[in-house]
Amino acid sequence: MTVQDARTPASDSGNPSEAGKSIGWHKGYVAGSRPDLRVPVRLVHLTNGNDVTLYDTSGPYTDPTVETDVRRGLAPLRENWIVARGDTEEYEGRPVRPEDDGLKHTSPRGGLLQAGTTDLRGLDAVFPGRPRRPRRGRTGRPVTQLAYARAGEITPEMEYVAIRENVSPEVVREEIAAGRAVLPANVNHPEIEPMIIGKRFLVKVNANIGNSAVTSSIEEEVEKMTWATRWGADTVMDLSTGRNIHTTREWVLRNSPVPIGTVPLYQALEKVDGRAEELTWDIYRDTVIEQAEQGVDYMTVHAGVLLRYVPLTARRKTGIVSRGGSIMAAWCLAHHKESFLYENFEELCEILAAYDVTYSLGDGLRPGSIADANDEAQFAELRTLGELNTVAKRLGVQTMIEGPGHVPMHKIKENIDLQQEICEEAPFYTLGPLTTDVAPAYDHITSGIGAAMIAWWGTAMLCYVTPKEHLGLPDRDDVKTGVITYKIAAHAADLAKGHPGAQDWDDALSDARFEFRWEDQFNLALDPDTAREFHDETLPAEPAKTAHFCSMCGPKFCSMKISQDIRRRHGEAMDAGEVEAGMAEKAREFAATGNRVYLPLAD
Amino acid sequence: MTVQDARTPASDSGNPSEAGKSIGWHKGYVAGSRPDLRVPVRLVHLTNGNDVTLYDTSGPYTDPTVETDVRRGLAPLRENWIVARGDTEEYEGRPVRPEDDGLKHTSPRGGLLQAGTTDLRGLDAVFPGRPRRPRRGRTGRPVTQLAYARAGEITPEMEYVAIRENVSPEVVREEIAAGRAVLPANVNHPEIEPMIIGKRFLVKVNANIGNSAVTSSIEEEVEKMTWATRWGADTVMDLSTGRNIHTTREWVLRNSPVPIGTVPLYQALEKVDGRAEELTWDIYRDTVIEQAEQGVDYMTVHAGVLLRYVPLTARRKTGIVSRGGSIMAAWCLAHHKESFLYENFEELCEILAAYDVTYSLGDGLRPGSIADANDEAQFAELRTLGELNTVAKRLGVQTMIEGPGHVPMHKIKENIDLQQEICEEAPFYTLGPLTTDVAPAYDHITSGIGAAMIAWWGTAMLCYVTPKEHLGLPDRDDVKTGVITYKIAAHAADLAKGHPGAQDWDDALSDARFEFRWEDQFNLALDPDTAREFHDETLPAEPAKTAHFCSMCGPKFCSMKISQDIRRRHGEAMDAGEVEAGMAEKAREFAATGNRVYLPLAD
Repeated sequence: MTVQDARTPASDSGNPSEAGKSIGWHKGYVAGSRPDLRVPVRLVHLTNGNDVTLYDTSGPYTDPTVETDVRRGLAPLRENWIVARGDTEEYEGRPVRPEDDGLKHTSPRGGLLQAGTTDLRGLDAVFPGRPRRPRRGRTGRPVTQLAYARAGEITPEMEYVAIRENVSPEVVREEIAAGRAVLPANVNHPEIEPMIIGKRFLVKVNANIGNSAVTSSIEEEVEKMTWATRWGADTVMDLSTGRNIHTTREWVLRNSPVPIGTVPLYQALEKVDGRAEELTWDIYRDTVIEQAEQGVDYMTVHAGVLLRYVPLTARRKTGIVSRGGSIMAAWCLAHHKESFLYENFEELCEILAAYDVTYSLGDGLRPGSIADANDEAQFAELRTLGELNTVAKRLGVQTMIEGPGHVPMHKIKENIDLQQEICEEAPFYTLGPLTTDVAPAYDHITSGIGAAMIAWWGTAMLCYVTPKEHLGLPDRDDVKTGVITYKIAAHAADLAKGHPGAQDWDDALSDARFEFRWEDQFNLALDPDTAREFHDETLPAEPAKTAHFCSMCGPKFCSMKISQDIRRRHGEAMDAGEVEAGMAEKAREFAATGNRVYLPLAD
Repeated sequence: MTVQDARTPASDSGNPSEAGKSIGWHKGYVAGSRPDLRVPVRLVHLTNGNDVTLYDTSGPYTDPTVETDVRRGLAPLRENWIVARGDTEEYEGRPVRPEDDGLKHTSPRGGLLQAGTTDLRGLDAVFPGRPRRPRRGRTGRPVTQLAYARAGEITPEMEYVAIRENVSPEVVREEIAAGRAVLPANVNHPEIEPMIIGKRFLVKVNANIGNSAVTSSIEEEVEKMTWATRWGADTVMDLSTGRNIHTTREWVLRNSPVPIGTVPLYQALEKVDGRAEELTWDIYRDTVIEQAEQGVDYMTVHAGVLLRYVPLTARRKTGIVSRGGSIMAAWCLAHHKESFLYENFEELCEILAAYDVTYSLGDGLRPGSIADANDEAQFAELRTLGELNTVAKRLGVQTMIEGPGHVPMHKIKENIDLQQEICEEAPFYTLGPLTTDVAPAYDHITSGIGAAMIAWWGTAMLCYVTPKEHLGLPDRDDVKTGVITYKIAAHAADLAKGHPGAQDWDDALSDARFEFRWEDQFNLALDPDTAREFHDETLPAEPAKTAHFCSMCGPKFCSMKISQDIRRRHGEAMDAGEVEAGMAEKAREFAATGNRVYLPLAD
């Protein structure tokens, strides 16, 4: 593997060289088969001269050789690949309307000037970057990675993720063709660095962002997105509601190096002033097209909430807790009709296939409490999602399936096993699950436990939960805590699955720990900043102390050194007799060095 | 169950009554069969008039009717029970010597006045509370809960924990008699509120405290102990090293409502100025008696680190990471002899049996990295611990077994299964395990995942890990984070094990959540303070908003109400036809109420 290295420190987390000490970590690139195919990595330069290569989701923002400007957006990395396939065309697109931004039908008072939470002055300022016209499939045939994979084609996107995952491109193609993996990549989101979601690959993490009627500006949401990817979010869902919903999404998309997911139902509901019963297929359809034209890579669609399932929630402890599920249940009840999402599912597939939008079939009836886990309502919906998955695949649309929710540990495995069986191994994308209800303010942890377990057993992507779950809207710190917690769960699962190469990272860090290479330990850490900060709190950065002092275990104990010495001398060929001899020799040496248990400290 | 209620708010976490609103939570007591047997509980008074009773570890400190004073210590709750048994006697005890406090052989410079990290002025000030003489078994026969249980006796301690655990006293006696549970309760620690550790009972959590040569005072450690129990620590280990080690322990013991554990080897090592090879059985034995006289309830003894196992660690990635394990390995290497702990194990048992000190047989060869998990060294030691467990049980000493460490998820179950098999179901007491090495600063989370899983599979007590693990010494905030994380793991395991009544807590909280009883939700939370704070950050406490607004899921959606209405009207007898009828009716009602998806907000 040839790695190009942008050897200027990538960020303030990288530790700039100090008189021959560690130079920290940097952005690097692995070259693919063509000049415009370069896969980003995080290169950690160890003080022992070795490099460790880690998966990198942070986009061009951490490359000091690239100039980024959120008002212009990221470069359209995939544009040539998309154009070269020749199966899409640009077109005029749907005109953007005030109600797309939740501005109520251009009413004078509720209108443009009320968008005062941002510096926008009107819809002309939607996004100041390069002008673009939307693109879609030219012929009516799917322009999806699924369709290409089935046709035997290895796209540049597939090669890209193969390099990222350290597998062969053919494995990527096979997994996508079988529907066991998705590569969310809307033709209108050429800015993304392709990634793949499937159980044969590294477990992925999604971070939710989104403004609300009450708080946060567009700028805040864009910053949360870059912040989340900086810490390792593989995809981001923009769950904005309220004002500026279209514009917020445009800014997020144009600046995002990772696939963006949405729940179109939220915006559709805004367009009917929050009255679920006024929703129609036409309004929903129009919203999906609006978002597909913008470049949304995957969409949560709660098409499995059927009228007949709603009564199954009646005896639940916490009823329906999914927002999308509640909206669809309300619509079904109000009209006493079957869900318009279910009834029009094939047409929806055709739309998504024309942009390569990936389905995330939503679990609108997921359990909202331990008491409701694995109940009839939940699994009835899952069976319907299985049917819809088959339809979507037939029509060439990439599909993943969303999962719970609140589930005690002993009921988790049934969820993934049933989903894999019913949905023909389509990628499972789960929220947690939370393993207890009793710890609001710590639901990143209650759910991190469940997330690690369900990912070990086959879940392909984990939707993060922040400490503010159930309580409030996550701020920047909450986003980081949520992402880090879920990266831990995902990596723990990669290890448990025996993912090739996953343990290299742990081994590199443990080597650094054993050898008291503190800077390497920090630079290899999932969160170098906090690791360094915590260490410095207890022990100020005096080299004499930091070199041989493990503050939890006490001063460095030389039995570690003894282990190392024996190992170095005898290597792998050491048998029991040699060990015995080595031990006796060590006993003599030990006495000769003054029988010190600890290496001397500063004194 | 009769519950006495000290109905003054228990602490600043309780929410004092505000004009008819919630009055929060209070200390209560469940009466046993005798007046001096009152089991504390946390009583949460809900706004709907119900009470929820939760397990309470916080001691008299949260009872406003009890006056506590750390300079006098807690009342000797169990003293009459111990005396009444008639099998122990007071005796002169071992004189306290300067070196017990790490004061190097009364040297003028290194002596008493250097104890300046506390306000102590000399050893007279060891502990200002009531004078006491140590107590021990009178006849040479064990005075242990194990011995009583085997003799068919249900002690007041057993009745106490039976009430705490909501099981019959006979179950408690049986589990202790079989060696499947321990009730750590040194006859010299009459202040404790008895608790039990065993897989048939609630999963317990231990918090480590301890000063070091560098930082923290006696007062800080006492405060960390009360703080840890306030948040739910079931036992506390005092791992102090360096100065004032004896005195710190005395203060901690006299003020602790929970069993205290130690690693006597740490203090013994201080007595030989940190030179492992100078350790002797006599010094160790003397230290154990010193600590047993003070009232230490359980002691970690690394008697399974045998000379022949040390070479098994040679090829490890991280060698020996246990401090006690390293010390014993060094001693074995220096003398090229078998461990003095192993060689003198029966005598040690006799000492422990005379005070009812419980063994925590230490895993000195536990893996310190993912790479070393479940290796030959680790399991060789475990087999030796199994032998020692059998010896200890035979001699009437309560025994639990310590476990790892760093273990990836797929290797966790083998640990508990093997331990249960080898150690005849003796309680397993595990540190985490950490499921990945890559997240220093977040090892409460990497290990919380493993802890929840191993507890589900049968671990009886979890030793917490704080965010500072591998990096520094935990402060007050770290202690709280560690305890809360591990209480989550323990409770998630209680749920997964189907522990009777465990889910009542989740159900009560989820009911409160579904019904938007915010104050009840806070008061039922594992950490009411942080839950309330997070909620207030997003939504200031305006009743109109808080009543119907779930800030993550959006404004309250009335499909929840619909579920509730249907449930209330039709109750459990509702069949499919009735549901259908109810649905149609609901559709009409829905229209009649204006078809509002959300209840109106403030506007």
